[in-house]
This record gives sequence, C-alpha cells and structure tokens, in this order.
Amino acid sequence: MNAAIDLAGKLATFSEAWQPRTVSLFNGHDVMVAKLRGDYHWHVHDDSDDFFLVLAGSLEIDLDDGTTVTLGPGQLYVVPQGMRHRPRAPHEAQIMLIERTGTPNSGHLATAAPRRVI
Amino acid sequence: MNAAIDLAGKLATFSEAWQPRTVSLFNGHDVMVAKLRGDYHWHVHDDSDDFFLVLAGSLEIDLDDGTTVTLGPGQLYVVPQGMRHRPRAPHEAQIMLIERTGTPNSGHLATAAPRRVI
Repeated sequence: MNAAIDLAGKLATFSEAWQPRTVSLFNGHDVMVAKLRGDYHWHVHDDSDDFFLVLAGSLEIDLDDGTTVTLGPGQLYVVPQGMRHRPRAPHEAQIMLIERTGTPNSGHLATAAPRRVI
Repeated sequence: MNAAIDLAGKLATFSEAWQPRTVSLFNGHDVMVAKLRGDYHWHVHDDSDDFFLVLAGSLEIDLDDGTTVTLGPGQLYVVPQGMRHRPRAPHEAQIMLIERTGTPNSGHLATAAPRRVI
C-alpha cells in the first residue's frame, strides 16, 4: 500500500513488552516496532546483525565484551551478527528494530515471539 | 566502536542536500543520514529496496504509479526495488536512509554522490 507508516501510531496499537510487530519489509528484512521493559535475556543471532533505533525512552544493550551501549531517542546501534547481547530497559523503551526475516527475537525458535504483521 | 550513533548529531556535521553520509553498516547495507531540499530527479534502484525514515521536516515521494507518499517525522516508507520514484522536499527534510551497500543514490554510478562514512 502506498502510504506512510507512522511508527508512533503502530506502537499505540499494543502494550506487551518484547513482542515485536512487523510494520514493513525491506530487502529480506522485517522492519519492526517493539516496546521493551525490564531485562531481556542474553542471546545471539547467528544469521543477522541486529538494528536498534530508540524512538522514545532509553535502552541499554550489554555486549559480550563487557561494554554497555546506552541509547536515547534518535540514537541507533547495530549489534553485529554473532555477538551475544542483552537489551535492558529500566524504564520503557519504544524502538524500531530491523532483523533478517525469520530471525527469532530470542535467539531460538522455541522461545521466540511469534511474527505479527500490523 | 561500541557507542550509540546519534542521528541528529551526525546530521549537524554537514549541510549539503542530496549527499548522504553513512553512519553505520547493517547486513550488507549502508545506514545513512541525509538532508533533502527541493526536487530530486526520477530514478530507480534495480538492486535494492529504498528505505526512508523522516527525522525532521517532511518528504514527498512520487511513485511511478502516479501516487505520492507524504512523510513527516517518525514516518517511514520503503520504495520497492525496481520502482521509479522521485523524492521531493519543498522544505528541508532530514532523513535516515538504508540501501544495499554500493547502491548509487541517483540510480546511476556516473551521477551518484560519493560514499562518505562519518
């Protein structure tokens, strides 16, 4: 459909944390929005970089090398493929996320959130 | 480098229109910021979808099917690979742009802006 995709509008349609919604497709990737609250678990994506852009709130991403990246609105970080990481949002973060289509958000298909397209 | 990439901060480092700057890499793509002013020319990317997210201002994208997509801050649109399009920014638009690395922004290598990484 030839229409703008409004990220805040898409985020307003759900409240669950760690349950990304796909809002567009791009070169074999899912462009998603998600709400993050609290600590996620350490995980890794063996087949995709992991693109995070914070739209509201703040996000911390712990990396396997012992460093932490802190992101506020308008800030992005790409976790390299194969790098273990743990996203944390002490307060709610609203983000845009891009991963190769089919990438399990949890790192494993058994625990991944279902793919939801909105 | 394990640091957040601040899009507004990157945009503040240059003023030229239609000269994207690469700020990150992602799964074989360049993540770029750009300032757009006035009308660009009709062009097509045969090898990449074209991802536009408006950060400030507004952007109109004319499409080959006769429709126009209008984008404001926080709104995105993905022009499908192979679709002729013409971006227009009657006032300045500041955007994040993602294309496969090596995609000429103008549609042709001969007229493309050089790749600049900042």
